[in-house]
Amino acid sequence: MRIGIYPGSFDPLTYGHLDIIDRAVRLCDKLIIAIAKNSAKKPFLTIEERVDLIRHCRGEGGNVEVVTFDGLLADYCRIHEVNFIVRGIRSMTDLEYENPIAAINSKLAPQVETVFLLSRGEHSFIASAIVRELAGYNGDLTSLVPPYVAEKIQRKLSNH
Amino acid sequence: MRIGIYPGSFDPLTYGHLDIIDRAVRLCDKLIIAIAKNSAKKPFLTIEERVDLIRHCRGEGGNVEVVTFDGLLADYCRIHEVNFIVRGIRSMTDLEYENPIAAINSKLAPQVETVFLLSRGEHSFIASAIVRELAGYNGDLTSLVPPYVAEKIQRKLSNH
Amino acid sequence: MRIGIYPGSFDPLTYGHLDIIDRAVRLCDKLIIAIAKNSAKKPFLTIEERVDLIRHCRGEGGNVEVVTFDGLLADYCRIHEVNFIVRGIRSMTDLEYENPIAAINSKLAPQVETVFLLSRGEHSFIASAIVRELAGYNGDLTSLVPPYVAEKIQRKLSNH
Amino acid sequence: MRIGIYPGSFDPLTYGHLDIIDRAVRLCDKLIIAIAKNSAKKPFLTIEERVDLIRHCRGEGGNVEVVTFDGLLADYCRIHEVNFIVRGIRSMTDLEYENPIAAINSKLAPQVETVFLLSRGEHSFIASAIVRELAGYNGDLTSLVPPYVAEKIQRKLSNH
Amino acid sequence: MRIGIYPGSFDPLTYGHLDIIDRAVRLCDKLIIAIAKNSAKKPFLTIEERVDLIRHCRGEGGNVEVVTFDGLLADYCRIHEVNFIVRGIRSMTDLEYENPIAAINSKLAPQVETVFLLSRGEHSFIASAIVRELAGYNGDLTSLVPPYVAEKIQRKLSNH
Amino acid sequence: MRIGIYPGSFDPLTYGHLDIIDRAVRLCDKLIIAIAKNSAKKPFLTIEERVDLIRHCRGEGGNVEVVTFDGLLADYCRIHEVNFIVRGIRSMTDLEYENPIAAINSKLAPQVETVFLLSRGEHSFIASAIVRELAGYNGDLTSLVPPYVAEKIQRKLSNH
Repeated sequence: MRIGIYPGSFDPLTYGHLDIIDRAVRLCDKLIIAIAKNSAKKPFLTIEERVDLIRHCRGEGGNVEVVTFDGLLADYCRIHEVNFIVRGIRSMTDLEYENPIAAINSKLAPQVETVFLLSRGEHSFIASAIVRELAGYNGDLTSLVPPYVAEKIQRKLSNH
Repeated sequence: MRIGIYPGSFDPLTYGHLDIIDRAVRLCDKLIIAIAKNSAKKPFLTIEERVDLIRHCRGEGGNVEVVTFDGLLADYCRIHEVNFIVRGIRSMTDLEYENPIAAINSKLAPQVETVFLLSRGEHSFIASAIVRELAGYNGDLTSLVPPYVAEKIQRKLSNH
Repeated sequence: MRIGIYPGSFDPLTYGHLDIIDRAVRLCDKLIIAIAKNSAKKPFLTIEERVDLIRHCRGEGGNVEVVTFDGLLADYCRIHEVNFIVRGIRSMTDLEYENPIAAINSKLAPQVETVFLLSRGEHSFIASAIVRELAGYNGDLTSLVPPYVAEKIQRKLSNH
Repeated sequence: MRIGIYPGSFDPLTYGHLDIIDRAVRLCDKLIIAIAKNSAKKPFLTIEERVDLIRHCRGEGGNVEVVTFDGLLADYCRIHEVNFIVRGIRSMTDLEYENPIAAINSKLAPQVETVFLLSRGEHSFIASAIVRELAGYNGDLTSLVPPYVAEKIQRKLSNH
Repeated sequence: MRIGIYPGSFDPLTYGHLDIIDRAVRLCDKLIIAIAKNSAKKPFLTIEERVDLIRHCRGEGGNVEVVTFDGLLADYCRIHEVNFIVRGIRSMTDLEYENPIAAINSKLAPQVETVFLLSRGEHSFIASAIVRELAGYNGDLTSLVPPYVAEKIQRKLSNH
Repeated sequence: MRIGIYPGSFDPLTYGHLDIIDRAVRLCDKLIIAIAKNSAKKPFLTIEERVDLIRHCRGEGGNVEVVTFDGLLADYCRIHEVNFIVRGIRSMTDLEYENPIAAINSKLAPQVETVFLLSRGEHSFIASAIVRELAGYNGDLTSLVPPYVAEKIQRKLSNH
């Protein structure tokens, strides 16, 4: 069995993430969507909210599993016998950011490969940070996230 | 009438900004220089000081207007019937930063175009962040900002 | 009157070019689409064929004019009182290619500005060179060029 | 069964290629190493020589197959039920080159994914073009290609 | 006498730094390793700890001197008659970051040159920030920093 | 004695080259300006013409020597006890081009360092290829090359 992992903050889930998930699923027998607990930086959504958005918009089950993790991704991969890490690339800056991380991971867990998928052109401008900023100004999120995500964000912001 | 807008923080105004303003003016019948209120990050100069620097160094009137704005640039453009946004590009990193913003803006306000001007080589190293850092070390600002700006910054820093 | 020029080889015209044309038209009172005669490199389509494709797919008249030119673009701009040159940017490599050309043009014709428009994400992979290569292998051109262009190319290739 | 394909010119095979092959093999049940016949540009080595180098240095059999192909890669993938294309990335320039090709391939064969592996740092300077140029000057190829490849190239060059 | 300076935060010293130091030493008669006091951002290691790591792992004396400095590097260079600044480049993002700094320094101290050395491929993924993050997760630092540095970091973290 | 080498085609010499030469001279006791004989690609100017342009515009003698070389730069450096190679960088594309060459040279001649100088902003658009193209269209070369070079080129072109 070939196990892939798609790690990220998913804060919040975007159409860009969903596209990578759909494409990554086809590369493995089981895809683990792994939400980093981000102990260092304070997230916008709680870890439970982020899990909920993925479970609702993508669904779990079959060959997709949604998990949360803390600590080093390389350790998680070793323990759960992950074969490869999937990362989406939107731009050259993304690649420059991912490059040393992939190199470190290949030192820490040599048997785990990192594979990159290029974001489709129509998603290449979508970033969770932009979603959060836009939401803060009450901007239209229609082209960036599923309706369920947009709703959750707006409700969260109006409660503040 | 063709209306252009040149948005930015202008914290502080630099020779790089002034060059883009001079070139952008020729592309439209009216150029709005729009200073973002930056509610998120704490600026170095107050919004009033930033307006004053532009008014003094560039002058207003004729086909140039200096305004401040809060909220989404796309909303401002829609309300004020702006035809295009002007952004200066100093480097590939700048382009990668501007690319998703321009894409979002074209979703939010499809009738507003974003046009990019390349910084002239002799200005391509000038950034407001570098001016602020250099000023903090009492460095010479002569090649980066007009004398009036340098003076204002030095006075501000010596008052702290 | 504000005159823009969109120079290129258009060998052949693509959906990417058409998008830039539509957006550039809104920035000026007259847009000159200027096909370079490419005396150095041997083109795939003749200059007459390239003119025909643009005339047919985009149409001329109103504020759009299709011309051919030889020699330096800067000289053409000076003679025809062009105010700005429009170039589309698909990638950072494009920008690095355009950067010195724009700098030279600003030396040769200081009153002519070069403005850059970013290709929309869904067009950012389209290049005339890829169209030509794909056509050579009888590949499907549907997402790259208008049907009229695809037909012309296929007829041209089958005559060889 | 999951089938991957690693297409290229392999003119000649390098340590960079071999590293990508070793890593790609682990991502699929069968890896097809597909040598492009390069009808357009004149290769340095014949297609038979290039097949021989891979067969000798990597070996065939088990889950690795060495083939040659002409025409569109997307067509080959469709016919042979390939699931994904593997490409190695050494630099940002590589990514910019691969990006539109991957986009076109996803239009021509939507069920075929393109995955990218980053070259390991110690291989990131190796390119077949550099091997050919170095060989032309009788330079030491030890760190670039296996001894068998170096020998073949030197014999070929001394026969000219 | 030709004096070079290699400025940085060295927070902590890595194998990447050590490689640049070894190579920079050969370019000058005296190399000053200059640790910036980083008054703005709070460092992980104290300035004394950073000095100690370099003194222990690289050694001082002969043509190498370890110093700390505050204020503008250009001022330091002028006062100490430095001929050139050495900076290591791991990636294009590094270059884009260094480019305006080098330009400013050449304005502030025209007689001081900035020279760039490219990180060797096997070190190009090493960054002090990654070392600090990895250490925080108790990750293996073997391929990133000398044993003495790894020990110091682990002791420091376990004291918190 | 510290010997630097500045290799290139210098076809023709530009203000960009002259700036790098002036800055490189200060880094060493002797600077060798080494004109590659370019056996592969057909140059615009003969090797003698290229030597003449440098000798005339820069002058030889003192710590500057103008030579021509064929074969591998690394071999030349070894034989002539060169300590470091100087290369100018105008853009990220330049760096990506130079990166593997520097890596290969450090394999072939480990004792020879490659150091990079960034082109000054006002020279960053100058390339010999652009000079040649511009000259072919009888464009103004004033900001690109010294008058003596411009004259030589124009005379050469009018003789064809």
